Amino acid sequence: MLNQFKFVTGNPNKVREASEILDLILEPVQVGGLFEVQSPDLDVVVRHKALQAYASLQCPVMVEDSGLLFRAWNGLPGALVKWFEETVGCSGMLKMVEGFSDRGATAICCFAVYDGQTMKIARGEVNGTLSDSIRGKNGFGWDVIFIPEGHEQTYGEMSASEKNGISHRKRALDELKQIL
Amino acid sequence: MLNQFKFVTGNPNKVREASEILDLILEPVQVGGLFEVQSPDLDVVVRHKALQAYASLQCPVMVEDSGLLFRAWNGLPGALVKWFEETVGCSGMLKMVEGFSDRGATAICCFAVYDGQTMKIARGEVNGTLSDSIRGKNGFGWDVIFIPEGHEQTYGEMSASEKNGISHRKRALDELKQIL
Repeated sequence: MLNQFKFVTGNPNKVREASEILDLILEPVQVGGLFEVQSPDLDVVVRHKALQAYASLQCPVMVEDSGLLFRAWNGLPGALVKWFEETVGCSGMLKMVEGFSDRGATAICCFAVYDGQTMKIARGEVNGTLSDSIRGKNGFGWDVIFIPEGHEQTYGEMSASEKNGISHRKRALDELKQIL
Repeated sequence: MLNQFKFVTGNPNKVREASEILDLILEPVQVGGLFEVQSPDLDVVVRHKALQAYASLQCPVMVEDSGLLFRAWNGLPGALVKWFEETVGCSGMLKMVEGFSDRGATAICCFAVYDGQTMKIARGEVNGTLSDSIRGKNGFGWDVIFIPEGHEQTYGEMSASEKNGISHRKRALDELKQIL
């Protein structure tokens, strides 16, 4: 399909990582007035964002979103995790889940690539568990409370290269490479 | 300002209630493809929805949204409460708030009226507390867990007329009547 598109993001780290894995020179771009649709479902959010970005730029685009699903919460917070971070924070999220015995969680990353005709979605998932407390100082957002399966450290306790080698974003980019 | 606009909603009960309080004949209309922007802030959500509805209909519009703020959660769930209902339900919300000592909550309703030039926002708030368990069979959504200040019953235990006489939506409509 496509091998030339603009990556709509404000995060240069994501551009570097995606360029390396996809082996493409990605042109980052920011689009004013883009909004995220209200849904915990990452698939819904990236499709909507890709349609909007294409409408604004009139050229092939790539967008990304990521989130965290708590198994006990049946899909929440998902893509809405950023609002949990902003209001109650990671410690608040752990407090909210205290009463639930299932501490399973899944980290999800979705990319959407849209050229005005075809929408390609790549999804990467990593299962894991929620830590008992905030752990680590690396990464960002909820990295400090998520322990990926097969590991004992949270994302926040791993080095960037260690996390990026196993992360939900890495898996989504690997999937995207297959699709493109 | 305005006294003729279309009320963009799929809920005939809201149309009847708003028509009575505003003493206007409101024409209800549904708009396909309207999206709610991802934010817990009702003000942000209704402004955005009004702009979209106006762009689609090209005539003066009124939109509404309501939500519930948990004081312990610093603004959450707010407008996102519908996703909490869909995933964990009202019993799940009570379980999530168990570990927090502050059980205060505020019910909020926002109306936005937009004629392509001026945006008028009316906001109604009712303070209260979260019940210990699901109580009542009336109303809808989170009515069964919210006890308004000065009352001992949840919204869900009240009759429709009793609730509508004191509700956050009634207060927002009273405010809107002053503004218009």
